[in-house]
Amino acid sequence: MAAIRFYFDYISPYAYIAWTQIGTLAARHGYTVEPVPILFAALLNAGGQKGPAEIPAKRIWVWKDTLRTARKLGVPLVPPPAHPFNPLLALRVTTVVATGNDNAAQRRLIDALYRETWGGGAGIESAAAIERIVTEVGLDGPAILSAAAEAPAKTRLRQVTDEAIAANVFGVPSMRVISDERDELFWGYDSFGHLEDHLRGQDPFSPDDLTRWQNLPSSASRT
Amino acid sequence: MAAIRFYFDYISPYAYIAWTQIGTLAARHGYTVEPVPILFAALLNAGGQKGPAEIPAKRIWVWKDTLRTARKLGVPLVPPPAHPFNPLLALRVTTVVATGNDNAAQRRLIDALYRETWGGGAGIESAAAIERIVTEVGLDGPAILSAAAEAPAKTRLRQVTDEAIAANVFGVPSMRVISDERDELFWGYDSFGHLEDHLRGQDPFSPDDLTRWQNLPSSASRT
Repeated sequence: MAAIRFYFDYISPYAYIAWTQIGTLAARHGYTVEPVPILFAALLNAGGQKGPAEIPAKRIWVWKDTLRTARKLGVPLVPPPAHPFNPLLALRVTTVVATGNDNAAQRRLIDALYRETWGGGAGIESAAAIERIVTEVGLDGPAILSAAAEAPAKTRLRQVTDEAIAANVFGVPSMRVISDERDELFWGYDSFGHLEDHLRGQDPFSPDDLTRWQNLPSSASRT
Repeated sequence: MAAIRFYFDYISPYAYIAWTQIGTLAARHGYTVEPVPILFAALLNAGGQKGPAEIPAKRIWVWKDTLRTARKLGVPLVPPPAHPFNPLLALRVTTVVATGNDNAAQRRLIDALYRETWGGGAGIESAAAIERIVTEVGLDGPAILSAAAEAPAKTRLRQVTDEAIAANVFGVPSMRVISDERDELFWGYDSFGHLEDHLRGQDPFSPDDLTRWQNLPSSASRT
């Protein structure tokens, strides 16, 4: 069965909302979901761009926008104890689980870590909190936490993030659909409508539509 | 009749798509539209952020995303001769028309300038092209072009842009709805669903929901 790659970071409430919906959307069209934890901050660094939380007016907008969407979907959304926070350990733990466990175990872990972040939980910055969550979803907490602290897990997260950047991922969530002829990337929960059109073979965009835009000259730039 | 302030710049294909739809949406709920031309580049400068066209992978995404949306809406969308281009003269001309003419004349002018930019036209960078368009929509082309080149028009555009930034506008299009109790800003064509909920009195967000988010500590920042 074909898979949708779902690039995410726990830092993003948009990625959280999208995570709560992507499984159903994918299943409706015969796809599975392959979650790919990446470090959002590295995407920002690569693009030389600021994150939404780093622009005060945009930070306010993100909260209003995600809260509206969450309430319409019936998804709980509560600010974590701090934001922005450091998601590195949670991402490394997820990376370890993603390489050594079945899809259902990964999904349970990501569900639980997201719930603890955005669903009214106590946050995922401490190793103790993360180990408890890993254990609660039926995995070997101590072993996974200790693997997450080793060089291979760190290297793997960095590699996967770099590969995402090389594949044009510039934000989270990003959903990537690879078929024989095409490799299409969708950004943001707001693009779920377009993603669904694509999955059902009714994408109004075709790769030829890109040629003129890609070759367009620029006649102005900011100084 | 209450008005929705519509902040826009010709540079943005999202603002173009939103412009083609905002009139109908506003009218459906008994609102008029007050178009407010602003310089998007100044918003980027104020936030220290990059524009979508300045991040290569995001620039590609913008084109795919807007083309999909435009085709679903039946709105023509064709790349202008160059992008990014310099929208200053077109914005100043619109500023002049916005202060001295009725709403219908403004609307005809903005329609025509957008069509010339994103609807398959020849672009709006030359004074000759803009003067022709102003004349074609029934306004005094030479007089308006000469007023647009004077200091008051330049000052006015700068002032209006600064006021927008002070009102938390960080991108285009932005739609601002001011009532006795609230002053709500919506960003992007993707927020039209939320905007419509708000206009019909069914906004799931209330200002109280912002308190905790606004007072949240940060426990990490990029180095």
